[in-house]
Amino acid sequence: MPDASLLEAFATPVDTPFVVEHVAEEFTSLCPKTGHPDFGEVRVLFEPAPGAQGGLCVELKSLKLYLQSFRDEGIFYEAVTNRIRDDLAVLMRPNWMRVTTNWRGRGGIRSVIRADHGPVPPTID
Amino acid sequence: MPDASLLEAFATPVDTPFVVEHVAEEFTSLCPKTGHPDFGEVRVLFEPAPGAQGGLCVELKSLKLYLQSFRDEGIFYEAVTNRIRDDLAVLMRPNWMRVTTNWRGRGGIRSVIRADHGPVPPTID
Amino acid sequence: MPDASLLEAFATPVDTPFVVEHVAEEFTSLCPKTGHPDFGEVRVLFEPAPGAQGGLCVELKSLKLYLQSFRDEGIFYEAVTNRIRDDLAVLMRPNWMRVTTNWRGRGGIRSVIRADHGPVPPTID
Amino acid sequence: MPDASLLEAFATPVDTPFVVEHVAEEFTSLCPKTGHPDFGEVRVLFEPAPGAQGGLCVELKSLKLYLQSFRDEGIFYEAVTNRIRDDLAVLMRPNWMRVTTNWRGRGGIRSVIRADHGPVPPTID
Amino acid sequence: MPDASLLEAFATPVDTPFVVEHVAEEFTSLCPKTGHPDFGEVRVLFEPAPGAQGGLCVELKSLKLYLQSFRDEGIFYEAVTNRIRDDLAVLMRPNWMRVTTNWRGRGGIRSVIRADHGPVPPTID
Amino acid sequence: MPDASLLEAFATPVDTPFVVEHVAEEFTSLCPKTGHPDFGEVRVLFEPAPGAQGGLCVELKSLKLYLQSFRDEGIFYEAVTNRIRDDLAVLMRPNWMRVTTNWRGRGGIRSVIRADHGPVPPTID
Amino acid sequence: MPDASLLEAFATPVDTPFVVEHVAEEFTSLCPKTGHPDFGEVRVLFEPAPGAQGGLCVELKSLKLYLQSFRDEGIFYEAVTNRIRDDLAVLMRPNWMRVTTNWRGRGGIRSVIRADHGPVPPTID
Amino acid sequence: MPDASLLEAFATPVDTPFVVEHVAEEFTSLCPKTGHPDFGEVRVLFEPAPGAQGGLCVELKSLKLYLQSFRDEGIFYEAVTNRIRDDLAVLMRPNWMRVTTNWRGRGGIRSVIRADHGPVPPTID
Amino acid sequence: MPDASLLEAFATPVDTPFVVEHVAEEFTSLCPKTGHPDFGEVRVLFEPAPGAQGGLCVELKSLKLYLQSFRDEGIFYEAVTNRIRDDLAVLMRPNWMRVTTNWRGRGGIRSVIRADHGPVPPTID
Amino acid sequence: MPDASLLEAFATPVDTPFVVEHVAEEFTSLCPKTGHPDFGEVRVLFEPAPGAQGGLCVELKSLKLYLQSFRDEGIFYEAVTNRIRDDLAVLMRPNWMRVTTNWRGRGGIRSVIRADHGPVPPTID
Repeated sequence: MPDASLLEAFATPVDTPFVVEHVAEEFTSLCPKTGHPDFGEVRVLFEPAPGAQGGLCVELKSLKLYLQSFRDEGIFYEAVTNRIRDDLAVLMRPNWMRVTTNWRGRGGIRSVIRADHGPVPPTID
Repeated sequence: MPDASLLEAFATPVDTPFVVEHVAEEFTSLCPKTGHPDFGEVRVLFEPAPGAQGGLCVELKSLKLYLQSFRDEGIFYEAVTNRIRDDLAVLMRPNWMRVTTNWRGRGGIRSVIRADHGPVPPTID
Repeated sequence: MPDASLLEAFATPVDTPFVVEHVAEEFTSLCPKTGHPDFGEVRVLFEPAPGAQGGLCVELKSLKLYLQSFRDEGIFYEAVTNRIRDDLAVLMRPNWMRVTTNWRGRGGIRSVIRADHGPVPPTID
Repeated sequence: MPDASLLEAFATPVDTPFVVEHVAEEFTSLCPKTGHPDFGEVRVLFEPAPGAQGGLCVELKSLKLYLQSFRDEGIFYEAVTNRIRDDLAVLMRPNWMRVTTNWRGRGGIRSVIRADHGPVPPTID
Repeated sequence: MPDASLLEAFATPVDTPFVVEHVAEEFTSLCPKTGHPDFGEVRVLFEPAPGAQGGLCVELKSLKLYLQSFRDEGIFYEAVTNRIRDDLAVLMRPNWMRVTTNWRGRGGIRSVIRADHGPVPPTID
Repeated sequence: MPDASLLEAFATPVDTPFVVEHVAEEFTSLCPKTGHPDFGEVRVLFEPAPGAQGGLCVELKSLKLYLQSFRDEGIFYEAVTNRIRDDLAVLMRPNWMRVTTNWRGRGGIRSVIRADHGPVPPTID
Repeated sequence: MPDASLLEAFATPVDTPFVVEHVAEEFTSLCPKTGHPDFGEVRVLFEPAPGAQGGLCVELKSLKLYLQSFRDEGIFYEAVTNRIRDDLAVLMRPNWMRVTTNWRGRGGIRSVIRADHGPVPPTID
Repeated sequence: MPDASLLEAFATPVDTPFVVEHVAEEFTSLCPKTGHPDFGEVRVLFEPAPGAQGGLCVELKSLKLYLQSFRDEGIFYEAVTNRIRDDLAVLMRPNWMRVTTNWRGRGGIRSVIRADHGPVPPTID
Repeated sequence: MPDASLLEAFATPVDTPFVVEHVAEEFTSLCPKTGHPDFGEVRVLFEPAPGAQGGLCVELKSLKLYLQSFRDEGIFYEAVTNRIRDDLAVLMRPNWMRVTTNWRGRGGIRSVIRADHGPVPPTID
Repeated sequence: MPDASLLEAFATPVDTPFVVEHVAEEFTSLCPKTGHPDFGEVRVLFEPAPGAQGGLCVELKSLKLYLQSFRDEGIFYEAVTNRIRDDLAVLMRPNWMRVTTNWRGRGGIRSVIRADHGPVPPTID
């Protein structure tokens, strides 16, 4: 099941603002109604807090293991997205963050869910 | 014929704002003038009201069945788009919503129709 | 229901061999098990018999109406493909013909079905 | 020659604002200097006035015939674009409209011409 | 674990030869060395035996469930491919069959494995 | 109307065999039934006869003017293709030639017509 | 060498604002350090002054000849871009203009240079 | 190791503002944890200070050699990006600059890091 | 330097013929003349000998480490390709093998080198 | 003018057959009729003779300089292609060679010219 304790972070190396985007193209969980697997892509985009204020960045391998922990979980698209947003916000306390999940679809309908944390700038896609 | 009673919704799981996009790539209805089939794609993009305020999200399978109910309907592009916008607005009362239909074309002209409900943010495509 | 009587043909204008390909990108029928719509593309590729031997080509508008006649038919992918091959072979008696249907998929699996009539040359794709 | 009398309109079905885009991919006219044919794409994007205020939408088949009436006309890119903008503005009196022509090019240079009517919103592409 | 008993077949509807291709874009199994998930695409291409000789085609939903049964299996790329080839050959006894798996890759290397059954024609890709 | 007298040729510069392909992306003629314009692409592929045997290549500007002469002609796809093949075969007497027309389509069906002259090698696409 | 006297302009046909974009995909000049040829694309985007105020548009064929006059010039990317911007601004005195050059690259680095004249609107790409 | 002394600059040729983008598609460094190579693309986008104020542009060949100096360096994505931003800011003192690195990924996750210097305009992508 | 001792193999799991393709998209070595890095893609395609005859397949992680061992080697495109072909042929003694390297290019010329071992079937791309 | 003396070759490193492809994407010469520049791509594909028989490969930088020597030459497409084929055949005496030029086009027609030397295998594209 989704396990936030797998997540690790490292100290942001600089005090000037910068933006990080991680895209995991191979995400899978289970549909809680039918038990069939869902497949999608998870995109995490954030601006870490400055290093001098204890800013943190999620460590890549730990992010991979955390995302793998959804593999056997029956969970809706909306809940996956908000769950990842919440777990990463607790871990990093970033200036802002956007989590977007892009699902390959069921029954001819594909879906995208997007959840923000903090003031995402309007110029961010 | 289009049947809004097929639509079902579930309670939004969180109170923080998030955005949902569903894209149905296989939509068909009939041209009301010639009776020939029209083919297109329907895209629904919305921000549900917060869970604490009774926010709702449309359920995916019910959306699929609702869209299939246009299959034998003679109806113009503009009417399809406004009808879907109205039916989903009644169902979910979202913070805002955008419905876009993208038609493969007749006689060398392809068309896109877009209808909004509520204050769609300027950063939304 | 599929109606081969909608098909019309016109006399091949020349005696030298040539090849014709028609691709209908907007085909829909119904799944005979679930009643849900299937969407796909139908490709017809053939070499008409020489004009001097009574060679015929299918007329485009009649082909369109014939393909539309599958709209309310519950029929498997394989049967659609073989049915179109058979109906067009009876109509045109071409030197050879290949009918290929390309389906958008159900449950994460998309399918292609191909049925030949006569000696399709090995260089034909 | 270009004939605005071919254009027809129908009453906008709703009072809420919506946006319509028509793209004619197969446009041709003649170069007024050389007589050689020009080929391009015409894109019309507009927000009709509300139905309660007598809002109108251009009818698709009439738009097709109108665009075909440029076929034998010797006319510059800029004049084609402004002419279509003017003729459609007179017909529909839309809230706003953008006409864009995209030409395949002559002598290694391809061109795009864009003419607006009324206050096109900054979020429109 | 992979379970061939999930596979079902239906009688080939015709006696004339035709070709079937199924592409499952969402396949996942586990790396037997590291336990990390592998993601790929499975393509099955075959010519069923003629109906009059008891020819069979794999049923689509059963193929989907069969492929899902690899989800928790630690198994190499090569073994996945040969296993699917063998299980489907036993089920259908097709005139010929080609199974191709296309893996998204590990460590910067992506892989494709292809296993044939019977005389696949040289014109088949 | 189509005017083969517009075509000019120049002497092939060498005796060793080589292959020439010309693709005219902007072709238009009229549908003989409806009078509506058809749009397509014309591809001419040939091996000229050796220079020492009086081999000829079609001159590019004359080919352009010849293709423009179809602009006001009501003519079927099949007839356009065979006519171009015949006119160019008379002009150049090439070792072999393939003429392919690719039409943007009417009523949701797009078409490709291919006519050969002489022994087109099997490796030619 | 670059020769602005090759440029010609014609009077803008209307008083309402519109936008013109010309893209020359085949531009070449010489690297002033090595003498090796550089290859790139030149894009000119502008809003002509209104016709009533003597607004002008650059004539297409003259633009082509002007761009060809850089063929034997040893000149840096930045200088090419600013030179074209300056020459066209003198010629047309447009409301605003953007010149963008896109170079295929040397040593694994490709470059884009963009120079503006006047108040280019923020919505222009 | 990364060596900023390899960087050279030349005087900006004009006083009017313009924008420069360099994209190095072939960048490689080493992962500081595993020693395995990382591969990515580096994009540098900036507006040089005006020539009259001593504005400078980075010289292309020196940029190439500077980027090659990371080849044997064990360094995190975030540090590469901030390091390049800092070294180029010291060299050029541009009006503003954006450095973006786009990495091909490890373990199914690809990453983009973006660091700005000075007031990057909101219209810059 | 290139180190074939890094390569490991495992026993082919079956006796029926099958085909394996590995594509390493991130290969780099050095130009032996200039010392500048070369970047390219390495594709290895082979049919292992049957398991019963001691057939072997190269192990993926060892292939990755082997390819990384070219990182500091000054070596021509042709030599890289033939060297990989030879080392893998010694390791696996496959029925046949094709090694293709695809280089991003220097000075505007990109290159592909292909070396075969044994009778590669004509249907192999 | 085209200068074959610029071409250099190096000894083929092995005796086993292999294939080399060089693609120069930035070729320009002049139209001998109008003096306007032509732009295209040159592709050279060959199998060098075995090293033990004195086999040679064209050196990349010399090929680049040779192709640049056509920059000011007024020469037809067909002559460019046959000239390059002849000059390289004299230089390398390869087992076989194919030279293909792909031109961006004039007046809406783009062209491809292909000239072979020796027995190019049928499986070569």
